[in-house]
Amino acid sequence: MTNGHSDEAIADLVALRDRLREFAAERDWDQFHSPRNLATALIVEAAELLEHFQWGALEEGDIGADRHAAIEQEVADVLIYLVRLADRLDIDLLQAAAAKIRLNESKYPVEMARGKARKYTEL
Amino acid sequence: MTNGHSDEAIADLVALRDRLREFAAERDWDQFHSPRNLATALIVEAAELLEHFQWGALEEGDIGADRHAAIEQEVADVLIYLVRLADRLDIDLLQAAAAKIRLNESKYPVEMARGKARKYTEL
Amino acid sequence: MTNGHSDEAIADLVALRDRLREFAAERDWDQFHSPRNLATALIVEAAELLEHFQWGALEEGDIGADRHAAIEQEVADVLIYLVRLADRLDIDLLQAAAAKIRLNESKYPVEMARGKARKYTEL
Amino acid sequence: MTNGHSDEAIADLVALRDRLREFAAERDWDQFHSPRNLATALIVEAAELLEHFQWGALEEGDIGADRHAAIEQEVADVLIYLVRLADRLDIDLLQAAAAKIRLNESKYPVEMARGKARKYTEL
Repeated sequence: MTNGHSDEAIADLVALRDRLREFAAERDWDQFHSPRNLATALIVEAAELLEHFQWGALEEGDIGADRHAAIEQEVADVLIYLVRLADRLDIDLLQAAAAKIRLNESKYPVEMARGKARKYTEL
Repeated sequence: MTNGHSDEAIADLVALRDRLREFAAERDWDQFHSPRNLATALIVEAAELLEHFQWGALEEGDIGADRHAAIEQEVADVLIYLVRLADRLDIDLLQAAAAKIRLNESKYPVEMARGKARKYTEL
Repeated sequence: MTNGHSDEAIADLVALRDRLREFAAERDWDQFHSPRNLATALIVEAAELLEHFQWGALEEGDIGADRHAAIEQEVADVLIYLVRLADRLDIDLLQAAAAKIRLNESKYPVEMARGKARKYTEL
Repeated sequence: MTNGHSDEAIADLVALRDRLREFAAERDWDQFHSPRNLATALIVEAAELLEHFQWGALEEGDIGADRHAAIEQEVADVLIYLVRLADRLDIDLLQAAAAKIRLNESKYPVEMARGKARKYTEL
C-alpha cells in the first residue's frame, strides 16, 4: 500500500465520492475524468460484468466463489465510475434514484405491471 | 402516484435496496430479475447514458438543463439496476468498492501513475 | 427521398462503404466521424439491439414480425457504424475477419472446444 | 491449424457466413449461439473496441501499429458476431443496411442535416 487510506471503511456514498476525489487528485487524473470519458469507462466495465453471463443464464446457484469474486470487482468498477461521473455533473445519486423510482411508479402502476416484463409503452 | 412510497426520501444504499425490493415484489418482477437480465438492463442504461456524449465531448459547461435532467435519469437507472444486481448476488456495494480501491492503489501507485491515463499493465 | 441513391441495391461491403462515404460527405459529417465517435455510436446501437433480449431469451420462434423488423434495423445500424469505422481506420473487414477466424482456430481446436462454451484460457 | 480452412480467403459476407456456420458446427456450438447470446457477445466485443478510445480521442494519426492491430481484431469480432446473429435471424445484412440508409435519407435530408450532429428529432 502506498498511502494511509487503505484500511479505512467507506461508510456511505458521500465517503466513497470523497475517497475517489482524493484518489484522482493524488494521481492528477481529474484531467482524464471528463463526463464523456467516465461514461465510456462505465460502459466498458458494464460489459466486463455482462461477459460473465455471455453464454448462459448462470443462475445464482451456479456462480462459484471465484466467479463471484470476479463479478464483485466488476460491480465495484461500475459503481466507482458512476460515483465519479455523478460527482463531475453535480448529481446526487440517491436523490436521482428516488426521483426515478417515483417516475417508474407512475409508468408502471402495480395493477397494470404485475407479472409483466413489458416496457411501459406496451402495457 | 399509486401507493404510499412516493414521498419518502431514500437515505442510503440500504434504503434504496429495500425500496427496490419492495418495488419488484409489488409487481411480481423478481422472476425477471435474474443476475443476467439485470446485467443486461444495466448495460442498456449505460448506453443510453453514453449516447448523450456520442458525437462529442460535451464539457460540463456545455450541458444545458434539459440534457442534465436526462443524464440524471440515465445515471439513476444505472444505479437502480446495479443495486438490484448486487442484492441478487449478495454483494455489499460499499465494501466491494472499498476493496477495489485498495486493489487500484497497489496497481496504480501514486508515483508511477501520476498524470498518466495508461492501464496498469503499461505503466 | 431527397436524392437519386435510394433505389440502388448495395452489392457488397465495398459498395456499402462507398455509399456511406457519400452519405457522410453530402451532409458534411466526416467531421463527426472520428474513430472514437464511431466506436461510441456502434456500442449505442449494439445496446439497442440487445435491449430486445433484455428480459428473456426470445428464441427464434418467439420473435414476431414487428420485433424482427426492429431488430433488423438495429443490426443494420451496427453494420453501418462498423463499416464507417473500418473505413476511417483503413481496415479491410473481410480480411480482418478471416485473420481472426484463423486465430480462433488455433485458440479453439475442434477436439478441445467441442460442446463447450468456455473461454480458450479455461479449456 | 487443425483443419483445411485456414488459408482460404473469404470473398464476401456470404462466404463469411458459411465459414462461421462451419466453425460453429465443427465445435457443436450452435447450441450456444442463440440470438440473445450472440447479441450479448457482440456488445462485449463492441466494448473491447471502445476501450481503446476510453481516455481520449485517439485521432487516426495517434494510433500506432500495435494498437491498430488490436483494434482490427476487435472490429473483426464485432463483424463475426453480427454475421452469426444475422444468420440465426435470417437477416440479409446488405439489404438491411440499404433499407436503413434509405430511411436515414428521409430522416436526415441533406439540406437540414448538413454540418449538424443532432438526432433527427432535434433537427
